Amino acid sequence: MALLILMPNRDSSELEGALRRCEPQLDLRVWPQCGDPADIVFVVSWNHPPGELRRFPSLRAVASFGAGVDHMLGDHDFPCGVEVVRMIDDDLVRDMAEYVCCAVLSHRRSWLHYHDLARERRWRPSPYPRSSRVVVLGLGRLGRVAARRLHSFGLDVIGWSRSLKSIEGIKCIQGRPALESALAGADYVACLLPLTPETEGILDASLFACMKPGAYLINVGRGRHLIEADLLAALDQARLGGACLDVFVTEPLPADHPFWNHPRITITPHVASLTNQESVAAQILDSYRRAVEGRPLLNRVDLERGY
Amino acid sequence: MALLILMPNRDSSELEGALRRCEPQLDLRVWPQCGDPADIVFVVSWNHPPGELRRFPSLRAVASFGAGVDHMLGDHDFPCGVEVVRMIDDDLVRDMAEYVCCAVLSHRRSWLHYHDLARERRWRPSPYPRSSRVVVLGLGRLGRVAARRLHSFGLDVIGWSRSLKSIEGIKCIQGRPALESALAGADYVACLLPLTPETEGILDASLFACMKPGAYLINVGRGRHLIEADLLAALDQARLGGACLDVFVTEPLPADHPFWNHPRITITPHVASLTNQESVAAQILDSYRRAVEGRPLLNRVDLERGY
Repeated sequence: MALLILMPNRDSSELEGALRRCEPQLDLRVWPQCGDPADIVFVVSWNHPPGELRRFPSLRAVASFGAGVDHMLGDHDFPCGVEVVRMIDDDLVRDMAEYVCCAVLSHRRSWLHYHDLARERRWRPSPYPRSSRVVVLGLGRLGRVAARRLHSFGLDVIGWSRSLKSIEGIKCIQGRPALESALAGADYVACLLPLTPETEGILDASLFACMKPGAYLINVGRGRHLIEADLLAALDQARLGGACLDVFVTEPLPADHPFWNHPRITITPHVASLTNQESVAAQILDSYRRAVEGRPLLNRVDLERGY
Repeated sequence: MALLILMPNRDSSELEGALRRCEPQLDLRVWPQCGDPADIVFVVSWNHPPGELRRFPSLRAVASFGAGVDHMLGDHDFPCGVEVVRMIDDDLVRDMAEYVCCAVLSHRRSWLHYHDLARERRWRPSPYPRSSRVVVLGLGRLGRVAARRLHSFGLDVIGWSRSLKSIEGIKCIQGRPALESALAGADYVACLLPLTPETEGILDASLFACMKPGAYLINVGRGRHLIEADLLAALDQARLGGACLDVFVTEPLPADHPFWNHPRITITPHVASLTNQESVAAQILDSYRRAVEGRPLLNRVDLERGY
């Protein structure tokens, strides 16, 4: 019985090292060196080639190397009966909440503006808003902690999700009409949705048209949640006041992309929440043992639903 | 019975307006137009001239226009038996915690660094520290909330104060030796102390010498907590990694001051926590009524102790 790392075009040496440190006896293989395909009972996948998993007749489960599984949704030859789990831990959740708070607070408190003023030796105090309303899109494990943390700063937080949630201090809503009316009063909109066929391109002109003029968009979901041209148009029309983006349709963001250098776009290079290799290795090994022993897997994903 | 605003060189028109809106019947006077000095039972002070309060024989209490009372400590002719209160409300406390979190999180997450990289169209993800230790100096109403909020992000927080406090999740310490050993392991040091003869100049070369090389200093107390030349020397020697300063010995910070434009100093123009005039007016009127009616005052200050 072996565990296969199947991550084309991604350096997996750190993960291999962490797995071997945790479990020196592990029969670990790294694609495309798979050995006998019948040995493989567990795969760690990132962007595996569609159909590739059908090569492994003993495969019991696949772990997505990350919190999202959108990279697997295009595999229409995904083998039946193979379970899917995702990597998500307390560090990932905490770091994402930290990033989202950093984006909202630093904008509320004009952090970059004062940084620019200081270069010109200018002392120009200006008031910050007494309060702000934030709409958090997505109330999964990441979204709900981000929402609660924002609320702890006295911000007025509304959370939107497909199935209605209940979170202390947060007004939870569902459905497009409720979202549109929440957006009309929001100063910040933060996207922490999973990427699914339903949410792809959700941050588009029709959504921006519902937002309060001057509102600020934060995208830490996936690049494909956003229609990039629609954002540029909304900023040009002053429909939106600005945006903080950590994820992009193409990463690294190409050097000639109009987002770079845009005066109202803050760019970070996909660092909102970085996977902790040690923690991921421990989760992978736990899932592997559960799969081998036939015990129930944690953090299971429904590929039909997409999260 | 009248209330006097005594704030030389400071525009009090907003405060006057807010007091009149709250209490149209109030006998409100603005220094130096005091009318009959015997009418004055309550003074709102900011930097009143030493000895000036002795002119008012009926004076019962003085409110400091702000959370600190250091501007009164130089008045050695402060009349006996007159009580002192300070202005502090939930907004002020919350806003200060927000600022301190913004300073720590934006540094942890390289916010200004990515801002500068984006101007050069450079995609350079770099890892952030898995955790950080923060020493909060001062655990009064402002410091304790800031400490708790930092802790909610999974940071390791140690709080130092003159009298030992107990705050859930925070390791509380007192005394210089305990402070010095805490500083040796701290990534961040945030000063939220009151300014008193004991704390003036506390952020000096001897303190920096105890800090972990590369640590980051945040000062939101008063400018005179910091020996500015010692900070510049510690940054030049790479003893400290950087500093975020909201308060300065001279404000506005003079245009030729070496802090401006320093590559490792973030400057904000005394905006960490801005007084909300409506909230302050309500607090002043409450204190005024308590003083008039002989009821106990809230937020009393011991001028001997200095806070």
